[in-house]
Amino acid sequence: MPEFGIVIHGGAGAILKEKMTPELEMGYRQGLLDSLTAGYRILEAGGSSLDAVEMAVRVMEDNPLFNAGRGAVFTHRGRNEMDAAIMDGRTLAAGAVAGVHNIKNPVSLARLVMEKTAHVLLTGEGAEEFARRQGMEPAPDNYFFTDRRWQQLQEAIAKENILPGGELSEGNPDGGNRCGTVGAAALDRHGHLAAATSTGGMSNSRYGRVGDSPIIGAGTYANDRTCAVSTTGHGEFFMRGVIAYDVSALMEYRGESLISAAEAAIHDRLTGLGGDGGLVAIDSRGNIALPFNTPGMYRGYYLSGGVPGTAIYNE
Amino acid sequence: MPEFGIVIHGGAGAILKEKMTPELEMGYRQGLLDSLTAGYRILEAGGSSLDAVEMAVRVMEDNPLFNAGRGAVFTHRGRNEMDAAIMDGRTLAAGAVAGVHNIKNPVSLARLVMEKTAHVLLTGEGAEEFARRQGMEPAPDNYFFTDRRWQQLQEAIAKENILPGGELSEGNPDGGNRCGTVGAAALDRHGHLAAATSTGGMSNSRYGRVGDSPIIGAGTYANDRTCAVSTTGHGEFFMRGVIAYDVSALMEYRGESLISAAEAAIHDRLTGLGGDGGLVAIDSRGNIALPFNTPGMYRGYYLSGGVPGTAIYNE
Repeated sequence: MPEFGIVIHGGAGAILKEKMTPELEMGYRQGLLDSLTAGYRILEAGGSSLDAVEMAVRVMEDNPLFNAGRGAVFTHRGRNEMDAAIMDGRTLAAGAVAGVHNIKNPVSLARLVMEKTAHVLLTGEGAEEFARRQGMEPAPDNYFFTDRRWQQLQEAIAKENILPGGELSEGNPDGGNRCGTVGAAALDRHGHLAAATSTGGMSNSRYGRVGDSPIIGAGTYANDRTCAVSTTGHGEFFMRGVIAYDVSALMEYRGESLISAAEAAIHDRLTGLGGDGGLVAIDSRGNIALPFNTPGMYRGYYLSGGVPGTAIYNE
Repeated sequence: MPEFGIVIHGGAGAILKEKMTPELEMGYRQGLLDSLTAGYRILEAGGSSLDAVEMAVRVMEDNPLFNAGRGAVFTHRGRNEMDAAIMDGRTLAAGAVAGVHNIKNPVSLARLVMEKTAHVLLTGEGAEEFARRQGMEPAPDNYFFTDRRWQQLQEAIAKENILPGGELSEGNPDGGNRCGTVGAAALDRHGHLAAATSTGGMSNSRYGRVGDSPIIGAGTYANDRTCAVSTTGHGEFFMRGVIAYDVSALMEYRGESLISAAEAAIHDRLTGLGGDGGLVAIDSRGNIALPFNTPGMYRGYYLSGGVPGTAIYNE
């Protein structure tokens, strides 16, 4: 039984080996490893699961390969609109931000919401004003600019993946693009669980759309009595299915194991709704689950007494 | 066993008989009755629970007594920032808006999000742009202006109920003010459930704070297999407790009755977190529950074969 550990994801979707270059695959694997290692070191030193998930997510936010923080995709208007959430399984305290711009590490802003306010969710310019008051310097637009994301927006506009009414076209958008999210769930030496999620949203999105990442119960949930969960995928289905909390409820109310509950949430509930994506989860005994129903999910785990593992495809 | 029915709330909080004038009490009771009757007529004529909850909520949004739509409280900046959600228990489809201004009936905008887009939650200016594109004329600022709400803002600013950091002071804010929300849950003749919630938010709030009302699973949830739920109260605790979905999960996963599940969600889960508020719920057999842990909750029910009932205090 591992004493502590961390699981992470960097997005799920139509991630196919034949579309991936060896360099890009190595970049993603290294990015996952960097995140796992940063979170693991905190846990190994006796730090909290809350610190570990925040750090693991920050490392992926700082990596332009992932659709969060620096690598956030562009909305239809060519801006980066980001969402994030964090939850402490010990106290059920939670913080989240939605639709924020020019924030280098949205997960850390979510943590400030949790710790410095009586609120759970702050949005848009209000959340940015709160960030400034907390001494968080805005990151300039060019910090978030990557040629790859800009190219993705131009392609999406050309294809009009998102129709004027906000409906998704029948196109075949890049899964890592449409469903990009990063997240982590951890158990610390003190038996406490935490989860965090961060996303750059949906490429070419409009109308201030917010997905499941900043929604407690949908994209992020942690409770010491059950599990810590972070999800990734087509957010609307995770919201309608209340997927992250569903894993916890199946454990608490039906006595299911973490693995069985996590599999049911993805393969029964989410798939039944017609949604695609996955989640990473850990329970207070160090059991982990990383189910997904898409061709791939960037993911990793690192448990005490073991070695870090990363994976991308359905292998 | 009633064939159809509707339950509604108009907010929960420190609503005390000794602070209420007979005129104000009569106004609230009439407002609840108007809402119940409007929803009931739709159900009686064979209409959908979705139409019934939307109409019941619209009637309360149009009534300046309730903190939603016309009667929305003012934020710190003197604006009305509204949130709403609606969910169809038949399909688990859902729509929501958060932080919208100049929208006469946010619940109807939430329904448009559900029916006309592939999204669940639209926010801020983006949601307002979507409303305009759907042909919804913006309501002018003065539509939402009531002396009573303006006075409440001035009093709140004077008392600084919400401190600069966003923390609630130890003051004793008017419950109907701080926790004002309206909502409805209904069962139709076809056995389908639906729920809707709408709010003007928290008086004197800052930083784009969003509460539980537009969050599927926290403030609003409906599922034909279990129940339809709309909550009201101190939103942050409903978000952390995922209270609306918790009622459903207790029924589905632990086999509890609607009444026992609804009581547990409020009196065990919400109270355990230190939160205050209540909810209204109905299941597919026409059982209803209206639990709350505050001194009062504006509430009503109207089941087929019965007469409408309204209540305010803990009686």
